[in-house]
Amino acid sequence: MADDARQGAELIAAAGTLKARPLGLDTFRENIVVLARCSRVMRPERLRGARKVEVRAGGRTLLASTMIGDDHLVGPDEIGLPQPLFRRLGVAPGDPVQIAPARPPRSLSAIRDKVAGVALDEEAFAAVARDLAEHRWSDMEVAAFLIACASFMSPEETLALTRGMVAAGSRLEWNGRLVVDKHCIGGIPGNRTSLIVAPIVAAHGMTMPKTSSRAITSPAGTADTMEVLARVDLSEHEMREVVERCGACVVWGGRVNLSPADDVLVSVERPLSIDTPEQMVASILSKKVAAGVGRLVLDLPVGPSAKLRDRRAALRLKKLFEYVAGHLGLEIEVLFTDGSQPIGRGVGPALEARDVLAVLAGRPDAPADLRDKAIRLAGRVLEADPELPGGRGEARARDLLESGAARAKMAEIMAAQGASPLSSGLGGLVHEVPATASGLVAQIDCLRIANVARLAGAPTDAGAGVDLLKRVGDPVRAGEPLYRIHGSDPSDFAFAVEAAEMNGGFTVAEASL
Amino acid sequence: MADDARQGAELIAAAGTLKARPLGLDTFRENIVVLARCSRVMRPERLRGARKVEVRAGGRTLLASTMIGDDHLVGPDEIGLPQPLFRRLGVAPGDPVQIAPARPPRSLSAIRDKVAGVALDEEAFAAVARDLAEHRWSDMEVAAFLIACASFMSPEETLALTRGMVAAGSRLEWNGRLVVDKHCIGGIPGNRTSLIVAPIVAAHGMTMPKTSSRAITSPAGTADTMEVLARVDLSEHEMREVVERCGACVVWGGRVNLSPADDVLVSVERPLSIDTPEQMVASILSKKVAAGVGRLVLDLPVGPSAKLRDRRAALRLKKLFEYVAGHLGLEIEVLFTDGSQPIGRGVGPALEARDVLAVLAGRPDAPADLRDKAIRLAGRVLEADPELPGGRGEARARDLLESGAARAKMAEIMAAQGASPLSSGLGGLVHEVPATASGLVAQIDCLRIANVARLAGAPTDAGAGVDLLKRVGDPVRAGEPLYRIHGSDPSDFAFAVEAAEMNGGFTVAEASL
Repeated sequence: MADDARQGAELIAAAGTLKARPLGLDTFRENIVVLARCSRVMRPERLRGARKVEVRAGGRTLLASTMIGDDHLVGPDEIGLPQPLFRRLGVAPGDPVQIAPARPPRSLSAIRDKVAGVALDEEAFAAVARDLAEHRWSDMEVAAFLIACASFMSPEETLALTRGMVAAGSRLEWNGRLVVDKHCIGGIPGNRTSLIVAPIVAAHGMTMPKTSSRAITSPAGTADTMEVLARVDLSEHEMREVVERCGACVVWGGRVNLSPADDVLVSVERPLSIDTPEQMVASILSKKVAAGVGRLVLDLPVGPSAKLRDRRAALRLKKLFEYVAGHLGLEIEVLFTDGSQPIGRGVGPALEARDVLAVLAGRPDAPADLRDKAIRLAGRVLEADPELPGGRGEARARDLLESGAARAKMAEIMAAQGASPLSSGLGGLVHEVPATASGLVAQIDCLRIANVARLAGAPTDAGAGVDLLKRVGDPVRAGEPLYRIHGSDPSDFAFAVEAAEMNGGFTVAEASL
Repeated sequence: MADDARQGAELIAAAGTLKARPLGLDTFRENIVVLARCSRVMRPERLRGARKVEVRAGGRTLLASTMIGDDHLVGPDEIGLPQPLFRRLGVAPGDPVQIAPARPPRSLSAIRDKVAGVALDEEAFAAVARDLAEHRWSDMEVAAFLIACASFMSPEETLALTRGMVAAGSRLEWNGRLVVDKHCIGGIPGNRTSLIVAPIVAAHGMTMPKTSSRAITSPAGTADTMEVLARVDLSEHEMREVVERCGACVVWGGRVNLSPADDVLVSVERPLSIDTPEQMVASILSKKVAAGVGRLVLDLPVGPSAKLRDRRAALRLKKLFEYVAGHLGLEIEVLFTDGSQPIGRGVGPALEARDVLAVLAGRPDAPADLRDKAIRLAGRVLEADPELPGGRGEARARDLLESGAARAKMAEIMAAQGASPLSSGLGGLVHEVPATASGLVAQIDCLRIANVARLAGAPTDAGAGVDLLKRVGDPVRAGEPLYRIHGSDPSDFAFAVEAAEMNGGFTVAEASL
């Protein structure tokens, strides 16, 4: 990559000022600027091969790719700004915008070093995390780095990456209060315990500022399900206010600047299906440390269709979590949980929210597995309270749930976060998937169920998803329904039904009923 | 990545027809379409995460990314097409264009397989090459694949990748004629022997259809230098006509569909500085086999600042070239050459073209090293002629050069390719870099010299570059000029001079003169 002389040259190279012109173009996540072919400040052909420019306005600096626009789109003294960038720069039409060729970040040498099998030091990872957070790397460079790291990364490197990621973003302080959290590595449909644990913990008087993600490949993330109940796209300031008032929140992490380098890594890991233990540990722990969490209970589901297929893999991941958390002063308790089937009955935002509310309301038809798991996890979190006699956490969690205290706390949190922008109704198209044989349910494939729910429209369509009617161990007769598919878009719904008919995800073992 | 059910679903998902609307926007290499937020056929928010669509018009199918345009850019029944895509589809405004969500290519599983250390088979590589050639992979996926391959790739896999790349593009046939070529792996500034070898070989009566690349990280590619003398962006049909008429050509490979998968790999390898032996072999040999070459002379320069630093690395690369070429029926002769310093005097398109013409004209001041190396390489190529007594190749090459036959042939090729669009003048800004000590020139750093030439503006500014006045072994006195820098842009020129002053690239060993 570029050597020193060239870097220096590009850094100082002719910057110029143009007038902001909004373009009615939405480029999604990407920062793009449009320049005239005969632009006053930059000959676009000079950028061939390296199309990145640094754009400055009102104290902000962003990196963007360039395109060339005709006369009617942009004049020689103008810079065309598509929607996201216009907003991110916070300019008005005609405002001055400075533009200069972007210098290739020095941290890119980390890619070559990792390909060559070198272990990187703290300083190198810190530089990588900083440049990732500033969007200085291209997706292609991020992908190269991740794949190179996937072949070898030491525990020390994972710790250094995590540290670098924490340092590259905001860090929340809670005035010495003990801040707790629980987290699950994901992969189990319906597993929405956070929405029950957070109000229990807050009802006990502890602080749990929960940030969560939206689904990208699953039928619902914690943020998607919470969004059925309340607004989730809170700013850092708004989130803080909710936590100060209620003791807990459940918000989407996208507007909070905690470990922003992680967001960049995840945006490439997801489409490439990269899911290494090292990246998972750095991702989760950097978010928690940045959020000011002091004690974390971690849920690792183990099962044949879970992320962790066996105990050996689970144990290896546990040790890595403990090693990194230990060096970051984060107290961690890792629990292996049952990942053999979905948790709760609903899979999809509105269906999962329904289950959560049923558990909080103490309704007799609430899914017992979801309730029991939430109590177990909340109990482990409450054990952090020095006032509570050891071993009393679980009983206290049960009390807070059964007394309605957790339910009241959840209502308080929902009100503080604001009204949901979504309807909580279930999709009106319904199809029941029947058992093809009689016997006992022997296995439920988490991936298959998630796939059917996603095809039906979840999470984009909050009311779409799968409603499970049977669990492992239940007796069924041929023709009896195993689950319901909900949806609202006819073509999506048809695909989901077709996929369920090809392979429903249930294994029924013959048995005399 | 997506499983079968999902792939099937997306394949059939609602395709629709929109009216083509040209947008005055140049997106360079990228295919992008602009849809209305309330488009008739596709809800753009459904594409979140996977923004690729398949666009069909007039029998052509291309993949593109989507953006969203306001009312004044595109209507609900229109599809906005930026310049490159509008041209590539060959439509007129208002023509019907079909659009459907793109299915994720199955070949992507190759990435996960390579990350997991699996050796891929012929079929897998063939699928990868096909999908690369059709631009079905994102840059990020290409980067992931390349880095995963960099950690391990067997000779059998390199062969399979090369075969797949040949099969994924056009293949030239030459009616049974013996087609020859010479190629250099690059890295040595000024090394423009192809422009001398091609006319010698054609003057002898053999066929040499030379396709070459433009520089991306070096100060000139063979195509850049040839462009000073003639047009190089010929189509496959035009290239064929030139070769039929003259016996040889020197054209840019960018408009010829030979191993198009290689162009995609190279477009990611270059910015990432990936340069593994396996990718180099697959890249070069796939182009040669697709061009119908039967015998190839390969120039591997070895030297302290060359791509090959020592004989061991060179030998390993030679064996891999021979293994793959052998299995593809391509006769190959690999020559280790002196890569300890630049070849010729000029570095940069116009300066190199000047040296080439001086050698062809037999001028006494022509660089002897360039002439001698070209004769040696041309001689090895001519040995392929069964009519020529063994060992006579080099003498024949010298005859053809000294008699003026090669010069006349070059004039013929230049006329057939068409007039150059560039001026052959040298940049008017000139600076001489002086020796800081007296003694003998001990070493010239190829990378430093290339960097200075590039900073001065080469190859974008054809007249910019470095003109070497001393070679290794020459005596110099302190203050005597080592080389001249040419340029025309004052700020570029200043950076080049500054870089040369920081480190001129020459090592002078003390000696009593």
